[in-house]
Amino acid sequence: MKTSAAAETEGGQFTAITRELGRFVIASDYARIGERVRHEAVRSLVNWVACSVGGSRHETVAIALKALSDLGGAGNAALIGRPERLAPADAALINGISSAVLDYDSTQARFTNIHPSGPVVPALLAVAATRPVSGKDFLHAYILGVEIACRLANGLFHEGNPGWHVTGVCGGFGAAAAAGRLLGLTEDQMTFALGIAATQAGGLREMYGTMCKSFTPGRAGQNGLLAAMLAAHNFSSAERAIEGDAGFARVLTGRSPSASLLAGLGGEYEVSANTYKPFACAIVTHAVIDGCLRLRKAHGFVADEILQIGLKVAPVTVKLAGNSRPATGLEAKFSVQHSAALALLNGKVSYRDFVDWKVGNQQIASLRERVIVEADPSLAKDQAVVSMRLRSGETITETVMHALGSLRNPMSDLDIEGKFMDLVVEPLGEEQARALANLCWDIAELKDIDTLLTAAVPRIAYDG
Amino acid sequence: MKTSAAAETEGGQFTAITRELGRFVIASDYARIGERVRHEAVRSLVNWVACSVGGSRHETVAIALKALSDLGGAGNAALIGRPERLAPADAALINGISSAVLDYDSTQARFTNIHPSGPVVPALLAVAATRPVSGKDFLHAYILGVEIACRLANGLFHEGNPGWHVTGVCGGFGAAAAAGRLLGLTEDQMTFALGIAATQAGGLREMYGTMCKSFTPGRAGQNGLLAAMLAAHNFSSAERAIEGDAGFARVLTGRSPSASLLAGLGGEYEVSANTYKPFACAIVTHAVIDGCLRLRKAHGFVADEILQIGLKVAPVTVKLAGNSRPATGLEAKFSVQHSAALALLNGKVSYRDFVDWKVGNQQIASLRERVIVEADPSLAKDQAVVSMRLRSGETITETVMHALGSLRNPMSDLDIEGKFMDLVVEPLGEEQARALANLCWDIAELKDIDTLLTAAVPRIAYDG
Repeated sequence: MKTSAAAETEGGQFTAITRELGRFVIASDYARIGERVRHEAVRSLVNWVACSVGGSRHETVAIALKALSDLGGAGNAALIGRPERLAPADAALINGISSAVLDYDSTQARFTNIHPSGPVVPALLAVAATRPVSGKDFLHAYILGVEIACRLANGLFHEGNPGWHVTGVCGGFGAAAAAGRLLGLTEDQMTFALGIAATQAGGLREMYGTMCKSFTPGRAGQNGLLAAMLAAHNFSSAERAIEGDAGFARVLTGRSPSASLLAGLGGEYEVSANTYKPFACAIVTHAVIDGCLRLRKAHGFVADEILQIGLKVAPVTVKLAGNSRPATGLEAKFSVQHSAALALLNGKVSYRDFVDWKVGNQQIASLRERVIVEADPSLAKDQAVVSMRLRSGETITETVMHALGSLRNPMSDLDIEGKFMDLVVEPLGEEQARALANLCWDIAELKDIDTLLTAAVPRIAYDG
Repeated sequence: MKTSAAAETEGGQFTAITRELGRFVIASDYARIGERVRHEAVRSLVNWVACSVGGSRHETVAIALKALSDLGGAGNAALIGRPERLAPADAALINGISSAVLDYDSTQARFTNIHPSGPVVPALLAVAATRPVSGKDFLHAYILGVEIACRLANGLFHEGNPGWHVTGVCGGFGAAAAAGRLLGLTEDQMTFALGIAATQAGGLREMYGTMCKSFTPGRAGQNGLLAAMLAAHNFSSAERAIEGDAGFARVLTGRSPSASLLAGLGGEYEVSANTYKPFACAIVTHAVIDGCLRLRKAHGFVADEILQIGLKVAPVTVKLAGNSRPATGLEAKFSVQHSAALALLNGKVSYRDFVDWKVGNQQIASLRERVIVEADPSLAKDQAVVSMRLRSGETITETVMHALGSLRNPMSDLDIEGKFMDLVVEPLGEEQARALANLCWDIAELKDIDTLLTAAVPRIAYDG
């Protein structure tokens, strides 16, 4: 370990952020985590499994599987929603892609839009593929992994992010912490694990709208898994991987991390602020969709009557989802114009809408072209003002203060269960879907997480 | 592909750097690459194999192998210098670590100190483990991979690098280009491959002196391999992964890339500027070692006669290798003070010197403490002024204008062969070492690179 050098060059004046985070993870006591926090973690896992089963048949996943097969790896770890078996680390990549490919997974939107489960859960499942893991330990490790990923995201990337895909750059730390907890790492080893995650951290926003959007969190999960397993064998890393002069925080953000990154550890839990998407597209488009759906329900117009649609949105919505002419289903997830058109045309927005052929559909495209987007700095990212000029001469307006699914207007357990069934019945059949949902809600009672994993594998083969 | 969105938001004004680099790689004609360039590539490969065999028994490699084994992967790809077999992608990681762990691999020091072979060769070997690859195609793909990695390093990281491990962040692109060339990617696919490498790019200087220093290039090789294989199946990525607003260059360096990054493609080759280390430690310490060895040879003093050692070095030497109190063999590689002490005490510096127990040795430590380092901005990184005050009252000085092994004072083919034998005879025995050296020098004639790989596997098992 680099202690002497670190002490010498820095005078030991900085808080040992890497080590403190590691210490927190290894010392955490499940009994001291409140029921509300645990239940939010369960909701997150139900949502994650739903998104993963639903996403597992996406072309992106099928292609990744072919590539891994060509690379000649083999193993016996199960995949969520798919019949193939892979080496555990490869399974982590595939499960991560499946969970993220619909852009439907949980979002911790306090200061960034990190999707912490995408990297964390696959790493945990990979560890569980190599040894028995109880549902309680799994849930506990999940809470801790989310804690680390979100603290780094919220503490380091809440402003001035030049284009990092935050789930990618912070997710590996969460995956390392979670996997490392299951592996029973010591404090030194956990510090190493976070350091090994640090030197693998990457992910670019330029990838949004391409298959790499979901690849990045999957790879982050693998990175964290590998970090934890290397650390378990005392593979050494930098003592000050996060806070050092050439460490994660300064190199990626240009700023030294503040010790406030550690404030309140073990009091509030980041997973408590996790939210679940009602729509399978960029979270920053949800207020607009909500507003469009409300207007259509209240006024009952049809698409042909709409002359122009005006959207006032937070600046970040334009930045992340202002693509006015998407060319593929994946790009359409980052087009607030496309989402508005879908909502107005159909009166609902399903994950099935974000497919290539619908992007080219004339009716949708024609409506999309009537959308005018304006960034309004007074609006938060879960807010929007949707106005519409109709052929009748009438102008109607809806103001959304908190989009459906946001922290102030969350999906209920029943909403989440509805989303689960919507995603899982088609791939697994209704009976298996119900059984899987129950296992997810009762995860804390499972003797071995393998029960849940097995229940997520389709019993009947399909084409794809 | 994101063409429409890119054109709209940017007006198409930027040069398509990602695509142009990809186009160059797929269009390259081996017949048009001059003999001098090819020979430098062969020297690089001889050096790489030597470093990899020599490094393959390091503790760092043994630990990584145990971790991979615990992760449950399996496969039949051979390892340089070791008897185990792994899945090809895992073999790439291990071969990458082996080649880098002695800090002895080739350096392209034009504007950065990138070690391009570390990520590129393991990715190529992994492809060769899945299909027949001729020595000529291997050599050609190697030249192209080095070209891409070094162009990005020299074009983007030559100034203001906040702490990126340049081999890590640029190496994956080189590995993707090289592996992609062997896989016969189309132009679109090669553009994807570079994009998939971009979203995985990472690596921090904070890791120097720990096991992660060699892990980072190994992982970069894996990243590039995976990128190429995904792209071969049309896994999509961003069209402007390097030059886009939220792409590699702007996010990692804060600056837009200049089109000069493409200047002269196919004229000069970056591999021509590759250099080979005579000493197994940070390249920026070599001028000091050279000076110390010259002084000892010329004046024949013993260590006890030395009162004080004054080193004037380039500022970058202090930054990267100014650790005055290293605690481990790996840290000692980044201590110009330790390197000076070794040279003065022994009259030679071997890779065997950078082991933990020698770092704590009293004689070395005592000499190390008599070293005073001064950064002199007028000195280049292959220059140093070494002065010594002796007990006799005499002060002796040596000025090194170009350190042994630098581009202006390169190792000869015979020097490289000597280094090869020094590293390879012990693990493989003299006969096998000689046969392997010959295969490396004649790589362009090999029908299948597998011949070389097989010759690099020890015939007799050993403990470790």
